[in-house]
Amino acid sequence: MNSPLAHPVNDAVRLSVDCMGGDFGPSVTLPACKAFLAAHPKAHLILVGKAEALAAAAGWERCTIVAASEVVEMDDPIEVALRKKKDSSLRVALSQLKAGADGQPASAHVCVSAGNTGALMAVARYLLKTLDGIDRPAIATVMPNERDGFTTVLDLGANVDCSPEHLLQFAVMGSALVSAVEGKENPSVGLLNIGEEVIKGSETIKKAGELLRNAAQGGHLNFYGNVEGNDIFKGTTDIVVCDGFVGNVALKTAEGLIATLVGFIKQEFSRNIFTKMAALAALPVLNSLKRRIDPRRFNGAALLGLRGLVFKSHGSADAFAFEGALNRAYDAARNCLLDRVHDLILETLEAMPTGVDVDEPTNPGDALAA
Amino acid sequence: MNSPLAHPVNDAVRLSVDCMGGDFGPSVTLPACKAFLAAHPKAHLILVGKAEALAAAAGWERCTIVAASEVVEMDDPIEVALRKKKDSSLRVALSQLKAGADGQPASAHVCVSAGNTGALMAVARYLLKTLDGIDRPAIATVMPNERDGFTTVLDLGANVDCSPEHLLQFAVMGSALVSAVEGKENPSVGLLNIGEEVIKGSETIKKAGELLRNAAQGGHLNFYGNVEGNDIFKGTTDIVVCDGFVGNVALKTAEGLIATLVGFIKQEFSRNIFTKMAALAALPVLNSLKRRIDPRRFNGAALLGLRGLVFKSHGSADAFAFEGALNRAYDAARNCLLDRVHDLILETLEAMPTGVDVDEPTNPGDALAA
Repeated sequence: MNSPLAHPVNDAVRLSVDCMGGDFGPSVTLPACKAFLAAHPKAHLILVGKAEALAAAAGWERCTIVAASEVVEMDDPIEVALRKKKDSSLRVALSQLKAGADGQPASAHVCVSAGNTGALMAVARYLLKTLDGIDRPAIATVMPNERDGFTTVLDLGANVDCSPEHLLQFAVMGSALVSAVEGKENPSVGLLNIGEEVIKGSETIKKAGELLRNAAQGGHLNFYGNVEGNDIFKGTTDIVVCDGFVGNVALKTAEGLIATLVGFIKQEFSRNIFTKMAALAALPVLNSLKRRIDPRRFNGAALLGLRGLVFKSHGSADAFAFEGALNRAYDAARNCLLDRVHDLILETLEAMPTGVDVDEPTNPGDALAA
Repeated sequence: MNSPLAHPVNDAVRLSVDCMGGDFGPSVTLPACKAFLAAHPKAHLILVGKAEALAAAAGWERCTIVAASEVVEMDDPIEVALRKKKDSSLRVALSQLKAGADGQPASAHVCVSAGNTGALMAVARYLLKTLDGIDRPAIATVMPNERDGFTTVLDLGANVDCSPEHLLQFAVMGSALVSAVEGKENPSVGLLNIGEEVIKGSETIKKAGELLRNAAQGGHLNFYGNVEGNDIFKGTTDIVVCDGFVGNVALKTAEGLIATLVGFIKQEFSRNIFTKMAALAALPVLNSLKRRIDPRRFNGAALLGLRGLVFKSHGSADAFAFEGALNRAYDAARNCLLDRVHDLILETLEAMPTGVDVDEPTNPGDALAA
């Protein structure tokens, strides 16, 4: 993809930000944007939202304000986002990733929103289209692991039913993401299953295992084999691939369990005067623990497989968390994630004997402009 | 089911125990059995295993030893357990649940094993058969929740692909389990999904939601609606129903996360002399917390839907955990779980307009004897 936007020069990444998205809108997104700009002296932000809501950002350096008159609410049906609210901040922010009809470069390298996930995916897919070789985009996020690193998990809810070919595509996209954002060459991929043995799981999973083993033999993927739920936190592999239903349940189970355990810890330490004194003694340790499992540190899920880079922040993100999503988006764009995903997909899927149909675009530069 | 064994008299439950199962065999199961007998003065145990391995139990009160010459190993394929090792402790323990060919009552009300899950389910299904109205047995376990109670989750891996009817059957069996073991009338059921709205999820899940709503309207089930992964720990519903693939991933994700967090807590408290002193101060609190999330307290998964009560202990259980599984099995038998499951199934499924085929057995007493 020779798009003029695929390679930001010298960290001069341009991010479009849906400032109205999420549970708190500009009261969270604007402070996050301000902190992000201060920390990234070459970055440029395109802030999208209602003019009056973004007035505070007027005059900020390296910052453009683009007005959008509507807001996609967190509980708006996808149809409303797609067909009714055509001037929503979500849609206008995404459209910054599209090149102009006259072939002009797109305005932004990457888009960030904390809005309604379903709406974001649907509008992104409609506006940007998918990359060649990708049937369905996927959502990828990271979870902390015992190796003091992160495990990237996808898909997290974009696709409830997946074919073996989709799971292979997720593996390829996840590999490209990890090598681009974390700088890891040849990251390992695990297939989420209910046992390590190749005979375990549904027919879909077994077939996906075959496709992944084939891809690994061709040298295109570093496929580890089947992994189980606990391997996500062990950090057995860099990437864990699953269908969106399973991934969503695993993510929400993990988030829920962390919240419950944090509640238990608070309860136990506030039972009586002695436990409260113990809490005081243990405070630095508890804070350090809290930082380590703080979900705000892992905020920023990648929507992969689109002809444009989109990152989704948690809807309930505060400014610290939203800045985390901006950072992840920035790193992805700076490291040419879009190109990498596209190249790896072509390489891997073309080499597969599975009849997966991959058309090389006649003009690779069309990718961003589509 | 008028089986003479369905109603133990005065807590005089007879449990058959596969003493060779699990990672540690008799070194764990025998001490657990001894402690269990001391705590339950009316219970009777049938200890099954190699004669020499069970020699230590000779002469124990309220205890019968039944010899079995073989052992199903944790990594034995199901076929080996089913077709080769016909005198395995696992199989002999299960066969204690069967009435004699001459119509004599079965020896045990409930069977407990820490053996290979796949083998246990397969042999149990072969020997005992399923209850009328149940296509597939399911595995149910409990997880601690924020309400200081437990959430019962099923299926946990017996069935990788489930139809909507299977999920309905799981809901019925889970309801019977919770009312029998926890004494809760009309426990609530949630359908595990990727969102609360009825339009979410795969076609199978949407159809299952319909069946569950119908059953609730008929007054047979207390169906709450869709729940998400985090609701397991919130305790939103008493029971969470899902297919075995999703349930297995959720359970292992939760187990893995708890192990990881416990590791993080240990690391943080052992960083240096100050954190170690803090750990000392916080020790009573940490122990109380540990007790609360100790997976050994929740040991003992029920194999539901069979014509006999079977409980599965974790393979890695120690004596404390294995005794927990014995306790759960004892409570289930004492509270006539088998009868309750059977009655609730007939009631619910017969009233369903879905064409689910349920044959009332000509002689209900056959159930245990089948």
